[in-house]
Order: sequence, then C-alpha cells, then structure tokens
Amino acid sequence: MSLPETQHLALDQTDGVLVVTFDRADVSNALNIDMVEELAATFAAVSDDREVRAIVLRGAGRHFCAGADLKSIGAVSGDDPHAAVIAFNRRFGEVLAQIDRAPQAVVVVAHGAALGGGFGLLCVADITILTRDAVTGMPETRLGLPAAQIMPFAVKRIGITVTRRIAVCGLRFDGAEAYRLGVAHELVDDLAAADAALEKVITDIRACAPGANAASKRLLAALDGRSMDALADAAAEAFADCLLSAEGAEGTQAFREKRAPQWANK
Amino acid sequence: MSLPETQHLALDQTDGVLVVTFDRADVSNALNIDMVEELAATFAAVSDDREVRAIVLRGAGRHFCAGADLKSIGAVSGDDPHAAVIAFNRRFGEVLAQIDRAPQAVVVVAHGAALGGGFGLLCVADITILTRDAVTGMPETRLGLPAAQIMPFAVKRIGITVTRRIAVCGLRFDGAEAYRLGVAHELVDDLAAADAALEKVITDIRACAPGANAASKRLLAALDGRSMDALADAAAEAFADCLLSAEGAEGTQAFREKRAPQWANK
Amino acid sequence: MSLPETQHLALDQTDGVLVVTFDRADVSNALNIDMVEELAATFAAVSDDREVRAIVLRGAGRHFCAGADLKSIGAVSGDDPHAAVIAFNRRFGEVLAQIDRAPQAVVVVAHGAALGGGFGLLCVADITILTRDAVTGMPETRLGLPAAQIMPFAVKRIGITVTRRIAVCGLRFDGAEAYRLGVAHELVDDLAAADAALEKVITDIRACAPGANAASKRLLAALDGRSMDALADAAAEAFADCLLSAEGAEGTQAFREKRAPQWANK
Repeated sequence: MSLPETQHLALDQTDGVLVVTFDRADVSNALNIDMVEELAATFAAVSDDREVRAIVLRGAGRHFCAGADLKSIGAVSGDDPHAAVIAFNRRFGEVLAQIDRAPQAVVVVAHGAALGGGFGLLCVADITILTRDAVTGMPETRLGLPAAQIMPFAVKRIGITVTRRIAVCGLRFDGAEAYRLGVAHELVDDLAAADAALEKVITDIRACAPGANAASKRLLAALDGRSMDALADAAAEAFADCLLSAEGAEGTQAFREKRAPQWANK
Repeated sequence: MSLPETQHLALDQTDGVLVVTFDRADVSNALNIDMVEELAATFAAVSDDREVRAIVLRGAGRHFCAGADLKSIGAVSGDDPHAAVIAFNRRFGEVLAQIDRAPQAVVVVAHGAALGGGFGLLCVADITILTRDAVTGMPETRLGLPAAQIMPFAVKRIGITVTRRIAVCGLRFDGAEAYRLGVAHELVDDLAAADAALEKVITDIRACAPGANAASKRLLAALDGRSMDALADAAAEAFADCLLSAEGAEGTQAFREKRAPQWANK
Repeated sequence: MSLPETQHLALDQTDGVLVVTFDRADVSNALNIDMVEELAATFAAVSDDREVRAIVLRGAGRHFCAGADLKSIGAVSGDDPHAAVIAFNRRFGEVLAQIDRAPQAVVVVAHGAALGGGFGLLCVADITILTRDAVTGMPETRLGLPAAQIMPFAVKRIGITVTRRIAVCGLRFDGAEAYRLGVAHELVDDLAAADAALEKVITDIRACAPGANAASKRLLAALDGRSMDALADAAAEAFADCLLSAEGAEGTQAFREKRAPQWANK
C-alpha cells in the first residue's frame, strides 16, 4: 500500500525506515484533528508491510509538539459541542493506541516542547530519544483540563505514582528530569547527538527479525491489564510460529553458522 | 461541611490547605483504631469541598508514624478475635484507599520513622516529601506478620519487584534509599528544607484547577487493574466536561489572554 | 519430602538454605527440557517445607545461564513439531511461574551470561544479585524469535516501557545497566562480593518469619493483573491468620520483650 497524501506531516521512506516529521512549525507542531487523522492514515498504510522496519516521529522547527491545538478544539461546535469534544478527544486516544501497537519499532526523537499530546507521543514509542533542553510534562490542569487520553499511556510508561504527581501539580520539566523519571530511554545533548543515537537504534532494529518484532509487540500489547497466566498460551504459540517460520529457521541456522541472518543485511 | 472533632489529629485549615498533623508524639504517632477513624472522618468531611485544594499529612514530634499500634491490636478481643483482627486490618486498608482516592492533592511530609502503616501512607500521597534521615520500610515479617493492607499500595508505588524484596527481607532503609526506589518524589535534608519544598508544591497545586485535578485523580483511580481501553471513553467524557465547564472556559481564555486563571490567584 | 535426584543441577541444603547450582558449565548452563524439569521437581519437593527459608539459584563455571538450549529445541520433532515446540515453550513459562510463586525467598546470584531464559530467571527472584560484568538481555528477536514466556516476567520486573525497547532492539547489556533498569536489586564487583551480598541477604531472610514470608508472597502473587480492592479482603485474612498464629504470638511478644524471635536464631 502506498503512503497517504499528507499536508501536516512530511513523510520520507528510505531503506525500510519511515520518517514522519510534524510539519506545522509555525504553531510548534500543535495537533489539530487533520494532523491526527494523517498520523492514523500513515500508520495504517504501512501496518501490514514488514519491509518497513521502523517508524520515526520527529518535529520540524524548534519543537517536537506543543500539544493539542486549542484553536482547533475551540472551533468544535454544532448542535452538540459536548459530543463533538468527546469525539475529538477519544479519537486522539485511539490514534495514540494505534501508534502504541504498531507492529514496527516506533522511535520518537524529541526536542523543544513535548507537552500534553506531545508528552503522550513520548509515552507510546518503543524507543524515545530526548534532548537535554526539551520541555515536557502535563500542564493541562493549569488550563482547567485533565490530561485525559494521555494519562493511561503515561501510567504505562512511568507508573501511577509519578503520573499522579505530574498531573496534580501540572508539572513541566526538562529532558534530564524526563529521563530520570523514565519517560525517555535515551538522553542526548542536542539534535546532532540525537541523530547519532537514532542511527545506533536503527542499526539494532535492523538486526532484529521484523516478524519476531511484530510478534513481540503483539504479545506485549496483549498484556495490558491482564495477568501473566492469560498470556502464556499465546506466547507459546507465537514462539512456535516464529521458530517454525522462515525467519526462525534462518535465525537459528545463522546462529549455528555464526553468521548474520538475512534480515540483518538490509 | 465542618471538620470533625479529633483527639489524635491536629487540624489546621488555612487558605485552602488542610494540614493534618498526627498528634500522638509519645507513641511515635502509632496508628490505633481511633486515629484511623479520625483520618477517615477528616477526609470524608472535605471530600466534596473544592475550596480545599490540598491536604497535607505530617507527624508531630520526632517521627511521622511508627506503624500500627500493636497494643491497640493486642487489645482486640471478644468472642471472635480472628474476625476482630480482620475488621481492624481491613478498615485500615479502606482508609488507605480513601486517602489514595481523595479528590484533593494529598501531600505527605515525613521525617523520622515511617514504618509499616506509616510506609503505607507514604505510598498513597500524590506528592511525598521525605527527609534524608527518615527510616522507612516494611519490617512486619520480622514480627511474624505480612504487610497485608500496605502491600497493594506499595506495589502501585514502587512495583512488585522492589516490594517483594522489601517484604521478604523485612527491610528498613533511609530516606535516600526510599527516594532511589521511588517511594518518595522529593528528598530533602531536614524539616526546614521539607517546609520549603512543601511551599513550592502548594504553589504548583494552587496553579491547577481544582475540578480538573479531581477529574484527573478520578481517571487515574479508575485505571487500577484495568486496561487502557476501558478508560478511554471515561477520559474523553471527563475532558469534554472540564473543557465545557466554567473552569475550562476560564483556563483556555486565560491561556489566550496570557494571564493567570482565576483559581491561580487564591 | 526429600530432594529429587538431579543430573543438571547440583543441590546443597544447609541450615535452611537450599543452593541450586546449574551444572552444565560446558554449554554455559543452557536450559534443556531435562534441566527445566529438574528445576520444577526441586521447587516442588520443598514447597511445603517451611524449614527451607531461602532458595538460591546460581551457575557453575563462567556463566549463570546462556538461555534456551537451541539444540534441545531443534531436536523436538515427531508428527506435530508445532505442538511440540508450544509444549516446551509453555512448560518453561510454567516453571518460571512456579519459581516466581515459591513460598520461600528466592535469591539469584548471576555472573557472566544471563540471556533469554537466564534473563527470565533474573526477573522471577525476590532478590537478584548481579556482577558488574554480567551480560544480560533479550537478544531473541535477532534470531527471529520472540522472547515469548520471558516477556510477561520482564514486564513485571522492569515495566513495559523498558521491556519493549529491549525486545524490539534485541538488546544485550552489562550488569550496571541491568541494575539501572531495575532488573537486579544489587550490583556487585565480582563473585566474591556477590557471596558477601548473598550472606547479608540470607541474614535478613532468617530474621523474617517463614510463614509470614510465604503469606506475603501469596498476597503479592494474587495481585497479578487484579485491582487493589480485590486483594484487600484476602490481605486482612492473612494478617489475622498470621497475628493469631504461633509465629505472630512469638513475634509480637519478642517485640514487646525487646528480644529476637525464635525463628531469627536459626
């Protein structure tokens, strides 16, 4: 399937890596409904494509993403504004969940503001690389709003203890603190260092089998809110499927022959 | 609703902050059944009062809270001591849950001993400030008892891995280690530094809308043991409720006008 | 009950501590099906024995455990190899769960390679002691396989955020990084330091009542995937059982008499 036409996202697909750049630098890449739908369409377009090994999210200009575009929410109207706001908010949560469960490895590289919805995006990436001077957090309650769709993903990422403090105090904090709290996996000094870290991450991802990665992410997504026991049968089945697939045969044979498997050469 | 008469707690309500001080310094503020009931009555009295923005728990004298008053448990008797112990233990768990779910921001400032039930209280606060020389942990198994009602809240706070080690080894540890393990959000040198940290936290809480904070805490409480999906609809509804409330209108308008919202002036 | 005959495990039971040493040094203690069954039989043999206070897992030779013995999995055949692989994988998950829920305190002391299944074992111990130069992680996806049975225990140990990154990037990392990520509770310089750390842990475990420890672990295991409320009744019952047991009577009396309880003298 080909990539969708997008107005607010710049898409670049090279050698199995799809780079998605938020392209509304004039409004600090604030999320409006069109941009959210473009994200959904982009992830949907590649979801069955195992040639796409990684999807990278980043922001054009000085910021990653300043959060929801309040103007866009303010423009919601019609007969039932309450229902319209619910629909917009719920839709953003759906797209966060879609990214969270993408079969590919998802990498976020963030600098500048990553607030509100931007903070939510940090929380759904498999690997989050953050610059030291980034500004992130959940200041929503300072505007009289709960960080509604974002909080469940924040809890998954940093636990309920840290999430509660951030939400209840409406905190903003820098990249170093975000790294200490577990929001990000890697802390870098600037965008040049972020590019170097990204390159290393992409190298790791290329060494992993795309089907096994998708199977791993499917199993981990299934764990959500369920007990360990419930997953064990599905896990055994996924293991057998992979082991007896072409990938598993190639991987274990390459291991015995002390050579790189075929997917690692891409 | 007015505050209850209390014998073991000193209550001070000023400018929207209710300070609850454990007032049994002669027994290191050990929790007996009356003190637990007074805590329950105090939180119940203000639970619908959005003028109360924060509730602060602290201990008079040299300690925060040394745990359950074993004398008080030992005095449990009657026809069915087994049932009586269950009732007391269960009641403490209920009150921990009540504090955990209070609609206001709950801040614990702890120094000296914070053991057993005192450790449980550290685990239910939205913001926990701990002095470096505090002594905390779950030494119950050294007395032949499980840390029964406390463990679920410990798991929520620091994860099952850390909780298991503490419980199985009956560990006590100082404030610095508690901070490293995630029990506390802030580590301070002494009570003077704790007061300064508390003041900053209260300033943050005042900047956040009381209704949005209560909505955030309600959503986070609902996450307990449930999957992300289950929460998303409730989250969207809470977002719409807040956005279309007086608070949301004031907050987003203040943001556009680059001024502090009305609740931040209190 | 007496200990089972074992070929791949060296068993040493002294003064209430059962040391289980993986004894296939020639293959870096890789897990084959017989070794997994011997582990299951060993834990089953002592599961009702409260005289066994702690079970220690370690590896003979230069490594703790290099993971599944791929030769052993490769040898799986018959009419339905898919079903046979599922059975082997599922069985390993069952034994991990059995160790995770052992009523005794379980301590892992790991050095050298602790990969794949070996990483899973790090994640189920109550206390994990790791040497600085250990090599651990989940490189399975590099072989085209998901870390199937291991991932749920990894999520319990280090959270889904960290687990996803390790799985999706097929990461290997050293002891210091494992400690930073929360895989291990204690980081030591070498095996001599590991022995000293182990001795201190055993001293702590001996100070705790065996019945109360088993009750604590039962409660924590019951928390898995369930909400806090669901556990509170069981917790109150366990507390009453322990308090009114011989252990609870001895423990609280020893506390009042400022002496060590009887179990701490062992």
